[in-house]
Order: sequence, then C-alpha cells, then structure tokens
Amino acid sequence: MSGPSGAGKGTICSAYLKRNPGAILSVSVTTRKPRPGEKEGVNYYYTDKKSFEKMVDENRFLEYAQVYGNYYGTPRDFVEKKIASGYDVILEIDIQGALQVKEKFPEGVFVFIIPPSMDELKRRIVKRGTESAEAIYTRFQSAYQELNYMAQYNYVVVNDTVDEAVRKLEAIVLAEKCRVARNKGLYLGQ
Amino acid sequence: MSGPSGAGKGTICSAYLKRNPGAILSVSVTTRKPRPGEKEGVNYYYTDKKSFEKMVDENRFLEYAQVYGNYYGTPRDFVEKKIASGYDVILEIDIQGALQVKEKFPEGVFVFIIPPSMDELKRRIVKRGTESAEAIYTRFQSAYQELNYMAQYNYVVVNDTVDEAVRKLEAIVLAEKCRVARNKGLYLGQ
Repeated sequence: MSGPSGAGKGTICSAYLKRNPGAILSVSVTTRKPRPGEKEGVNYYYTDKKSFEKMVDENRFLEYAQVYGNYYGTPRDFVEKKIASGYDVILEIDIQGALQVKEKFPEGVFVFIIPPSMDELKRRIVKRGTESAEAIYTRFQSAYQELNYMAQYNYVVVNDTVDEAVRKLEAIVLAEKCRVARNKGLYLGQ
Repeated sequence: MSGPSGAGKGTICSAYLKRNPGAILSVSVTTRKPRPGEKEGVNYYYTDKKSFEKMVDENRFLEYAQVYGNYYGTPRDFVEKKIASGYDVILEIDIQGALQVKEKFPEGVFVFIIPPSMDELKRRIVKRGTESAEAIYTRFQSAYQELNYMAQYNYVVVNDTVDEAVRKLEAIVLAEKCRVARNKGLYLGQ
C-alpha cells in the first residue's frame, strides 16, 4: 500500500488493520537505534550496519533504502513466513519501495492511495502546519509528480472517507483471493 | 458469470441482483416464441430468424448460440448502453458463451462459479431428480470436463454458501472498479 505524501495511507492502514485481524503489518529491519518505548519485533527488528549489508548481499530484502544515514528494509523471510501462516501481510511503503517489492515479489497486490483531489492534497499538506511555505510547495510538487507512478500499480483507492477506502481495500483483498491465478490447485487430483 | 452445470450460478446470480440494485441482468435476444407470461424486454427480446442472422452478420452480438433450433444471443448494444448509464451488467451464461464474450469484450470480468467439491456437484445433479442414471452420469462427466475452462477466467468463486459467494462477487465488482486500468482518467488535466 503506497501513494503520494498526504494521501492518508497511514490512517487507512491503521483502520484496515483494526478491522481485519487476519492482516498484519510487515515489520521492517533497521539500523536506526530503538527509541524509548519501541520494541524489537514490534516496531522494528534492530540490527547493525554490517549485518544489514550482509542481508542485502544475500538478497533477503524485498526492498530497502537508506534514510538520513540509517537503513530500513522489508525482510522477505518475515513476509513469506506470515503468508504461509495464513496472514495477509500489509506493507505501508513509499513509492520507490513499492516498485522494488514489485520487482522481487510480483505476486503482491499493489494499491495506490490517492487523495480525492489535488486541492484536498494541498489542504492536507498545509494542515500539518509544521512547515514553511516553501517546504509545503516542494512537498506538494513532489506529491503531484508521484501521481505519475499510479500506472505501475494494480489498484487505485481514492481516500475520500477512511471508511469507504477501507471497504475498498477489503474488497480488493477478498477479490484477489478469488483470482484464478491464485487458485490453481483447486480441484487438482479430484 | 458462468461455470459448470450444477454449480448453482442461477441461485447466486438472483441473490446478487436482489442485494445490488446497481446491477442488472443482461436481456438476450431470441428467436424462440414467448411463453405465457414472458415479456418483451424483460425475459427476452423476441425476433425472427432472419433478423437475428442479420444481427449476427453485423457483429451485434457479444455471443450467440443455437439451441434446439432456436437462436439466443447477448446484444452488444444493450450491454454497452446499460454500462454507459452506470449499471453493472451481469451475464449469466454458459462457458462457450463466456469465451465468446471474452473474445469480443475483453474488458469484461469473467467469474467461474464452482461447487465446493465434486461430491457436492454429483449430489446437486442427482437432486434435480428428473433424470435417468445415465443422464446424470453424462451431466456429471460434462460438468467435470467443464472445470478445465477455469484457467480462462479471471476469478473463481466456490459456491459453498450463497451468502458467502455473493459477498465474494460483490468484492470482485468493487475491486474491479478500483483497478488502475479502469481509472486512467483520474487526475487527468488537474
């Protein structure tokens, strides 16, 4: 699940997880130090730079990135084990990350969350209120450009209201489970 | 919407239509005479053989077939007009028909309804009770062979309970409306 900055994917993601106990959020690996209150295996898996880079070399990430000198990555192992246990694993992820995942895990379902309009996007970015006019403009421009990545996704969900967006996500997950390509074993050997 | 004989697509289709006023059943054109109580434009559009064959020549059917000397066909015009008015048009159709539609209307959504097991399929065919053992066997064999067509569909819905099957169909319809390929105009020109 990803989308431009300000689309509200965090809110939708939390609401989805609350309503769907069969879904879990992927836990990333990071070289960032734990902050007070954060827990190993809940917020992140914490590791050092050398171990992280070894995991990169061993192709053990579905995606990873370096942000402000720290690594963050989605461990393939975690995702595959949870799926094997019957969970729907949700990645709340930026666009660059999602495109990496698509490369390495094409059977994933890629959902692009967008705000109902560009006006609304601007309003949401401004509303955060912590930034200068210039920073707001830059963020808006970047969000606008990010919309061009929509074509690389399977689904687009307009975040008009959270309830409606969650209902659409639920439909997408259920529908994907009915795809013939995911049910090839049905009736096999009967 | 189609599937092997005995899968219960008729029941699911009716239940779906009852719960979803935004959906309508496609009305076929036929050369069969109207039966008592049947209404033009409700059960069928009635026409003669010559007019039907003219429509075939003009490529005005998404699919058609001849059964016991009568023609039956799905008029492209009807489907396209209803879609343009905002309806979801449902075709409850046999497999041969669905494959013809797929050829002519690839943007359609093709759902294969199957019974929960081959045992259940046999039970349902037997339950109709109007047929000889031999007829039952033939029907079962044919339904079994029809399962091979599943690979040509987009979705498979196991008809375990009608409620659950309808819920899946509803999810499929809603999810398909979120497909990026169906939302290319989003944000265009903004």
